[in-house]
Amino acid sequence: MQDLILRRGLMLVLSSPSGAGKTSISRALLESDDALTLSISSTTRARRPGEVEGKDYHFISESEFKTRINDGYFLEHAHVFDHYYGTPRHLVEDTLRSGKDVLFDIDWQGTQQLAAAARTDLVSIFILPPSIAELEKRLLNRAQDTADVVANRMAKSADEMSHYPEYDYVIVNSDLSRSVQAVQAILTAERLRRTRQLGLTDFVKGLRAGV
Amino acid sequence: MQDLILRRGLMLVLSSPSGAGKTSISRALLESDDALTLSISSTTRARRPGEVEGKDYHFISESEFKTRINDGYFLEHAHVFDHYYGTPRHLVEDTLRSGKDVLFDIDWQGTQQLAAAARTDLVSIFILPPSIAELEKRLLNRAQDTADVVANRMAKSADEMSHYPEYDYVIVNSDLSRSVQAVQAILTAERLRRTRQLGLTDFVKGLRAGV
Repeated sequence: MQDLILRRGLMLVLSSPSGAGKTSISRALLESDDALTLSISSTTRARRPGEVEGKDYHFISESEFKTRINDGYFLEHAHVFDHYYGTPRHLVEDTLRSGKDVLFDIDWQGTQQLAAAARTDLVSIFILPPSIAELEKRLLNRAQDTADVVANRMAKSADEMSHYPEYDYVIVNSDLSRSVQAVQAILTAERLRRTRQLGLTDFVKGLRAGV
Repeated sequence: MQDLILRRGLMLVLSSPSGAGKTSISRALLESDDALTLSISSTTRARRPGEVEGKDYHFISESEFKTRINDGYFLEHAHVFDHYYGTPRHLVEDTLRSGKDVLFDIDWQGTQQLAAAARTDLVSIFILPPSIAELEKRLLNRAQDTADVVANRMAKSADEMSHYPEYDYVIVNSDLSRSVQAVQAILTAERLRRTRQLGLTDFVKGLRAGV
């Protein structure tokens, strides 16, 4: 019934320090929810083993990236760990208009830009680790990162966490399946927001007319 | 984990035209959620068969009600169908401070007053019937209401529904269990709002200090 009421999609942002579990949560969400698609970022960083062009990222050169910034191609872009990351605008806008939602796995810089560009479409969630010891353990378990990278990311974690007050919701990820359920509840709730249900005016007009 | 972070309770308001299913939803919510308690209103209307003083309502006289209005005893009060209804303030405030939530089964007049008194604590949901035919059927099935009362309520339904744009969320109640799940998702989400999690500042301070 409610599915028949026209709605505008939303932009669901998940941010967290590296290792807090954001990527696992995103993967589980995308598998369980057909109305949610991942925003694929463009980046200038090198492709890692196993990553696929157009699935994990659009890999482009730095000069191409800078040209696109000037063309207004990106909804947001950021410079992190010496590389550029950006969100192509047209795919997001088409998806929202069709009543589907877009998931963003981006940091606080990107989130600030999305908020400036489209605040009413944005739902932002910050994922915290249960403890610093747990965060370090998760980063050490990542085979592809060197010890230097781990140390660098631990140092950045404290800075990243200082931005949690800019987010709508905060989840402490001590258990993956509970955290996934929490994000699913937020998604269910935000889809029921009156302001996103564009078809309500007509629906209630019909009810009041005795349909 | 998240349960250990101090939070402020919220006021969950359900409103709807009579017969849209609000009372069944409220009952199911209260049974499934220990952190949610029903706000018991004071009223000047006559007790119906089966109603219990202090459980369904606090039944008081009109003169006593008016005295309490002047004393600021009520968080909100309204005059509906020739009777007064009001919410005692102290119980609500104690519950919110203890980190529990209060459910309100009130109309748009009461909701407007709650919004004026405590907007940041308020989460408001409007329940719509799937059709007018369904609404009439549900009202006719209520044994205790006379045909006159049903006709009167049908007339008031259209007016009540005109207030849906004042609510945060809107649910079309075509299936009771789906509607209950929808309200539970909203409750789960709103409890995860950063602004309600008063203990987050200390928790993140601990994380950043390396605890």
